[in-house]
Amino acid sequence: MEAILKNEIKKNVSGKSVHELDSLFKPKAIAIIGASSKELSIGNVILKNLVHYGYTGKIYPINPKEPEVRGIKAYPTIFDVPGDIDLAHVIIPGKFVPQIIEDCGKRGIKSVIINSAGFSEMGEEGMALQTAFLTNAKKYGVRIFGPNCQGIINADPQYKAYCDFTFTFPKPGSISIVALSGGVGAFIMQSLFDLEIGMRMYASNGNACDVSISEVVNYYGEDEGTKAVILYTEGFHNPKEFMDVAQIVSKKKPILAMKAGRTEEGAKAAASHTGSLAGVDIATELIFEKTGILTFNNEEEMCQAAMAFSTQPIPKGNRVGIITNTGGPAVIATDELVSAGLQLPALSEKAKNILKETMLPEATIGNPIDVVATGGGKHFRSALDVLMDEETIDSVYINFVTAPFTDTDDVARNIVEVNKQNRKPIVCNFMTNMSLERFQVTAKILKDGGVPCYSFPTTAAKALGALYQYHQVQSRNIGEAKNFSDTNKAGAEKILEQAKNENREFLSSAATYQLLSHYNIPVADWRIAADANSAIQAAEEIGFPVVIKADAESLVHKSDMGGVAVNLKNADEIHATVERMKKSFDSKDLKFFVQKFLPGGRELIAGVSAKKDLGHLIMFGIGGIYVEVLKDVVFKISPVTEVEAKEMLSSIKTSKLLDGVRGEKGIHKHSVIEIIQRLSQLVTDFPEIQEMDLNPIMAFENKALVVDARIRI
Amino acid sequence: MEAILKNEIKKNVSGKSVHELDSLFKPKAIAIIGASSKELSIGNVILKNLVHYGYTGKIYPINPKEPEVRGIKAYPTIFDVPGDIDLAHVIIPGKFVPQIIEDCGKRGIKSVIINSAGFSEMGEEGMALQTAFLTNAKKYGVRIFGPNCQGIINADPQYKAYCDFTFTFPKPGSISIVALSGGVGAFIMQSLFDLEIGMRMYASNGNACDVSISEVVNYYGEDEGTKAVILYTEGFHNPKEFMDVAQIVSKKKPILAMKAGRTEEGAKAAASHTGSLAGVDIATELIFEKTGILTFNNEEEMCQAAMAFSTQPIPKGNRVGIITNTGGPAVIATDELVSAGLQLPALSEKAKNILKETMLPEATIGNPIDVVATGGGKHFRSALDVLMDEETIDSVYINFVTAPFTDTDDVARNIVEVNKQNRKPIVCNFMTNMSLERFQVTAKILKDGGVPCYSFPTTAAKALGALYQYHQVQSRNIGEAKNFSDTNKAGAEKILEQAKNENREFLSSAATYQLLSHYNIPVADWRIAADANSAIQAAEEIGFPVVIKADAESLVHKSDMGGVAVNLKNADEIHATVERMKKSFDSKDLKFFVQKFLPGGRELIAGVSAKKDLGHLIMFGIGGIYVEVLKDVVFKISPVTEVEAKEMLSSIKTSKLLDGVRGEKGIHKHSVIEIIQRLSQLVTDFPEIQEMDLNPIMAFENKALVVDARIRI
Repeated sequence: MEAILKNEIKKNVSGKSVHELDSLFKPKAIAIIGASSKELSIGNVILKNLVHYGYTGKIYPINPKEPEVRGIKAYPTIFDVPGDIDLAHVIIPGKFVPQIIEDCGKRGIKSVIINSAGFSEMGEEGMALQTAFLTNAKKYGVRIFGPNCQGIINADPQYKAYCDFTFTFPKPGSISIVALSGGVGAFIMQSLFDLEIGMRMYASNGNACDVSISEVVNYYGEDEGTKAVILYTEGFHNPKEFMDVAQIVSKKKPILAMKAGRTEEGAKAAASHTGSLAGVDIATELIFEKTGILTFNNEEEMCQAAMAFSTQPIPKGNRVGIITNTGGPAVIATDELVSAGLQLPALSEKAKNILKETMLPEATIGNPIDVVATGGGKHFRSALDVLMDEETIDSVYINFVTAPFTDTDDVARNIVEVNKQNRKPIVCNFMTNMSLERFQVTAKILKDGGVPCYSFPTTAAKALGALYQYHQVQSRNIGEAKNFSDTNKAGAEKILEQAKNENREFLSSAATYQLLSHYNIPVADWRIAADANSAIQAAEEIGFPVVIKADAESLVHKSDMGGVAVNLKNADEIHATVERMKKSFDSKDLKFFVQKFLPGGRELIAGVSAKKDLGHLIMFGIGGIYVEVLKDVVFKISPVTEVEAKEMLSSIKTSKLLDGVRGEKGIHKHSVIEIIQRLSQLVTDFPEIQEMDLNPIMAFENKALVVDARIRI
Repeated sequence: MEAILKNEIKKNVSGKSVHELDSLFKPKAIAIIGASSKELSIGNVILKNLVHYGYTGKIYPINPKEPEVRGIKAYPTIFDVPGDIDLAHVIIPGKFVPQIIEDCGKRGIKSVIINSAGFSEMGEEGMALQTAFLTNAKKYGVRIFGPNCQGIINADPQYKAYCDFTFTFPKPGSISIVALSGGVGAFIMQSLFDLEIGMRMYASNGNACDVSISEVVNYYGEDEGTKAVILYTEGFHNPKEFMDVAQIVSKKKPILAMKAGRTEEGAKAAASHTGSLAGVDIATELIFEKTGILTFNNEEEMCQAAMAFSTQPIPKGNRVGIITNTGGPAVIATDELVSAGLQLPALSEKAKNILKETMLPEATIGNPIDVVATGGGKHFRSALDVLMDEETIDSVYINFVTAPFTDTDDVARNIVEVNKQNRKPIVCNFMTNMSLERFQVTAKILKDGGVPCYSFPTTAAKALGALYQYHQVQSRNIGEAKNFSDTNKAGAEKILEQAKNENREFLSSAATYQLLSHYNIPVADWRIAADANSAIQAAEEIGFPVVIKADAESLVHKSDMGGVAVNLKNADEIHATVERMKKSFDSKDLKFFVQKFLPGGRELIAGVSAKKDLGHLIMFGIGGIYVEVLKDVVFKISPVTEVEAKEMLSSIKTSKLLDGVRGEKGIHKHSVIEIIQRLSQLVTDFPEIQEMDLNPIMAFENKALVVDARIRI
């Protein structure tokens, strides 16, 4: 399956090979079209940055008037440049861009970063310009990055390509960043710099008219030097493409992501600067969940987590051992670790016996191990060795306060030695005064030794929590969506065709239930009747009591209008009901939908909603007040696998109700899980279905049946 | 009321005046008993720190063998010291401490910091020593700080008293810290130092055998130089004392607090280092809520918030205006601000017209105001002026990225000028590269100008959220608990007396309902019957249908044992039930509790639980599955005021159910609010009540009645 998907991606993501982006990220020669001698102009800053950062390739400033820019020989046009050009920056007014792209194509330039603004973000006129240059680019196979963007950075010493006008010059490292917003991308890069962890590659692609975030993530996924990916977005142009990429990359390396615009007001703010992408929807969160992306609501926490990912192995489980030389911070750390799903197992007798020999008498031997403030390097070392050997421990959290009366360098050296063994992840809350030279030395030992150091226990604990979360991503296998072979796709197609021919927005009751039945979604037994007598006959076939629903195309909200009568126990009641409805609803196509009445079960709801360019969201919850008052529902993106359907049942807040409480019987979960999967298959087969409500599904101890449904196409 | 409370505190908090702690925090002369020439020993570090920090008073090292310590003249005993001594550090083995305290008393020393360990934290023997020195201290009125503690710091230039062995030397400022854990206190102090905000006073009091956290908070409350208090604790020795102090101090200045041990595992870790204080309980959280303390689960966020409190005024409402020069960070900030309860009002026409004149053409005029990256000082200034004048705006959030092509110093100067007007609070997310000299200058302008600067939008937004939260604390008035005069306290007392005389743990049914009735808590009509006939008579008096409950002292969980029969509609059913129960429960004192059966209402629960040294917690929730499955209950500390009782009803997750959903009628809230208040009055009058369960209370459209209750004394 993975291999198949990979092929799909090659097709999806621009239809070309990953190596195509090498000309963007690993250029051997760069032309700067619009290089300028004017200090602080973008055409100047980009040239300055390339030189300052030590770009290893050739730089060709393009300027029709100047013989040189910032001391580097300039050329009037790209055609005057003697050698090959991989990449061009374009920093000229928008109206000249289509022609320049044509020129780039002719000149054999493979990638172009368009820094200039004034395109799709500026309304119709800009959009026309964008379409024009894109047409030229496609003609020659030129890849466009941007427009209206910052650019890219490759910190690999082999390239040192700083194709950007920002002001942070990162050390080489293993974290790669891709950000829709240049402002956010820049401060994330700055944050990694401040944390003294290196960066690998950086990309902020503005309007993203050609090279997409998905394509960049895919490129980072294939890049061996990238250990983890940081992603910032406010939505996706092509969510399906992103999902395909993300679910492969996230298995190989962690993707840490943040999606802003999670509140209505935030989405509004996003709309004002990125246009069409925004909208408060839960789809992005669901994409992240389904594809195994680690989601953050706090960008500082995301950067702090990246620090741990940059040097530490992934834990094999959730069991953490704590070493501390001060009490309170261990309490704070414990709170946070436990909140993140980690456990603190008791130590084995063997471990305790070793520690009794090696620790100071005041030490506390347990988990946390309190080596006390006077504990030195050998005490930390023994505690670390014990935890590394302990089979029930998957990771280690350290509180290290630089007590003035200890040899803190020796403590640091011992932590580093164990860290270098790379057996289990270590994070360190390092509490010190960095303005004192003595402790700067200690800090440097830890940093150089690859120990992720934090200034607060909660921060360090959260970072370890993120490592564990990625362990969960790697171990989670949602499987593939089941393809039920007992469905009647052709029959369903016919029903939908007919509804389309009738120009219906909503399917008729009969069509709705027939469609469900074609996918073997169990429904309460039903008949359509034209009058009271045939309704009575239908009820006798089905068995009393029954429900009667007035059925006509115009009646969408029939229950609000008295069009539904429940618990009809005999022929007389049916007769009276039908006659009453006839009077109330003066519709030519009025029929009577007779259905088995099923009291006493648990009311469930399931639903479907089509999302543009993504597929469908499938919803599940418990009906009645639970959905009305508690909004206790859960969503997944179709196709929903069996694992995911089970997760839907178990992840609602009131999931206990499904097992039965207060002497009530539990429901037949298997039936509901199957309904969800069949629903998923139905909408995957028929993307034209816009909306479905199975509300309620009545669930009993031994079965679950749809008793009301609505389908919009 | 405030005046009365203040008097109470003076009594509660050590029974002495606030100024008593002046000898501790503002000492004019300090003796160091146990001063040592041994580098890195505590007796050496404390002396070194005092000198290094520039203590303005006299220092007397006490050492029986050395003529001088670290170049300062030493004395063999405190009796050899020529001048007055306010404060003594004691750093000698525990067994000598009782005698030394006796000596300190004789010598007229007013306060003693005992840094030495080996007292109550070390079991019985240590406890005996602690009791011994405390007896001596009380004899002479010596105040003891510690033992087993770090000490205090007063950064006020008038004193510069660094009576502590830690390693962070704060600049003078307006934030004071008190921490149970020295480890946590130290890193909080370090964090303020790293944030370049000053500190006022610091205290970490270890075993806290005399001077308590409450007393220190009270002292900070009275200290004019303290603008905000940071508190770290793992619980309280005397929660009542703390509450009395906190509710006065928190009205005067913000108290930012963190209580660790909020998970079971965290509490266990806390227990291992602070002993008796720990325990997962919600009482501390409730104390914080009731007294208006700002609670944090994240110590970094707490310190970041302190930075805003140190310079900014408190907003007058929740309406924030955003100024940004980059898109994405404004989206992130908006998300966080809205999550913190703030709103982004639209700008007035007047404001928009001004901005249309003053902004660059690319700017976005709205809220957020996007001055764009090329916006300079005058653009920021105009946006700031507009927001300061805007009546619908209470605070300002700024994103300021130091775009290389702008005069960032000019932007900073303009922000500072407006900040100095002190009209509305400002926070600034300042995104820059601090390793570049150019931006260090910009940063310094902002810092010196008192603008709280953060490195992440979420961080800055959270800090502004904290300022707003304090606005809410200041505006919230829970009022005083109502004292219902129609209660029969004497009658209730008699019932409880009798139960005590009978050595009962649980009150009998009759006593339970009588007690409730004495406090006019409405109960469903009831009778006690000895046999079937009298039960039938009782039912006829009450009116059918009825409930019958087997009633005997041994039957606590009667409903599990078949001791409850509901909905009995006639004499025959009563007869059969009574005879069955007689056979099932072979108890001599067996009686039959006959009560009106009340179906169809909404089941509510209320409860009470006594907390040592604090009073009672009062609980409220919706019964049945809501409490069982959703744990949807809320707690308050007694006495509960009307405002608080109302909050209890509105703050449960399912509060909408009380208003009626799906065509159901809402309940009579007023009755329930009164039941909660009367319950509170009852347990306040009778602290011996350990536990009460009113479960359920049946609530209807026009009334609410207790139908089952249990009281443990």
